[in-house]
Amino acid sequence: MSTRSTAKRADALRSIDLGHNPDASLSEVARAAGVGRVTLYSHFASRAELVDAAMARAIGQGNAALDHVDLTGDPGLALARLVDASWHLVDRARALLVAAQRELPPGRIRELHDGPAARVETLIARGRAEGAFRTDLSIPWLINVLYSIMKGAADEVRTGNLTPDRAAAHITATVLAAFTPPGKPVPEPGWEE
Amino acid sequence: MSTRSTAKRADALRSIDLGHNPDASLSEVARAAGVGRVTLYSHFASRAELVDAAMARAIGQGNAALDHVDLTGDPGLALARLVDASWHLVDRARALLVAAQRELPPGRIRELHDGPAARVETLIARGRAEGAFRTDLSIPWLINVLYSIMKGAADEVRTGNLTPDRAAAHITATVLAAFTPPGKPVPEPGWEE
Repeated sequence: MSTRSTAKRADALRSIDLGHNPDASLSEVARAAGVGRVTLYSHFASRAELVDAAMARAIGQGNAALDHVDLTGDPGLALARLVDASWHLVDRARALLVAAQRELPPGRIRELHDGPAARVETLIARGRAEGAFRTDLSIPWLINVLYSIMKGAADEVRTGNLTPDRAAAHITATVLAAFTPPGKPVPEPGWEE
Repeated sequence: MSTRSTAKRADALRSIDLGHNPDASLSEVARAAGVGRVTLYSHFASRAELVDAAMARAIGQGNAALDHVDLTGDPGLALARLVDASWHLVDRARALLVAAQRELPPGRIRELHDGPAARVETLIARGRAEGAFRTDLSIPWLINVLYSIMKGAADEVRTGNLTPDRAAAHITATVLAAFTPPGKPVPEPGWEE
């Protein structure tokens, strides 16, 4: 970060949007944001630094939005509500996610997700304690499964195999089955199709 | 492809390995392969083209190896055998997969997987017909779930959260649960830990 001011970076970021093009160059990002290229370069040393900052900001805002999701009561229903709210955030930030997957070093996306991961972890731990979720696989693995299926849904939407409005129900039905303890029946999904 | 000879490209590719570094530059790839940079550049116009060719080759070889997997009998056990064999291929090609995720256009990795996907599709369709796998989610979605969980396992191995030898069992236990028809019990995994 060195001499670049955090406040100025935040100002620059506020108007920046990768839009629908994860491969947007810094110049294109600057044009779309109505910011001069020189201004943009003065705040971010590289495209990776910009993507990192944009990702951190999007996750921070998303995490704040998830504060309003009711995670009490039946763990399966709570997880369905969390998936529903999270999916809308992922769907809105799809281009940014693709850029982050391409440009950030391994482990960095996960690191940025520490906030939302803590929320998921608490819910999974409660579901395990109440016998709703399986305990024969570790909590970090189950979190990874949820994220992987969500990313997979984003891919399916990008390639046109799934419509965004059906994605949350697909993710929930799949994750609730994956989390079911061996020997217990997979819950019937509440399809609205 | 234009004037570049396919045979010469194949020769160049044979000795090329991204090794453990998905960010290896073309120069580093050339050095590791014992090929001159000029030779490498004469066969591949860009790093993306090299990654695409290396990925196509790895998948072709992997697909041939999967021909020997017995996919008859109980669909769940057949899927476990397929996951086991596929995981070893994914694990060996981890650096290449990361490079492909970063450099190839959306949909290209899936396109390259059309061969292995056809095999999975046949098995899933049989499992559905026999009542072993769920029919309330589409076959393309179930294939995507399998791939996503496999990719997630590769990430977990890369970040040190999972050892490669435990990955196949984790993937199988998770996917078999995800594929279980609603109302039916999740199969007990054959943990060997």
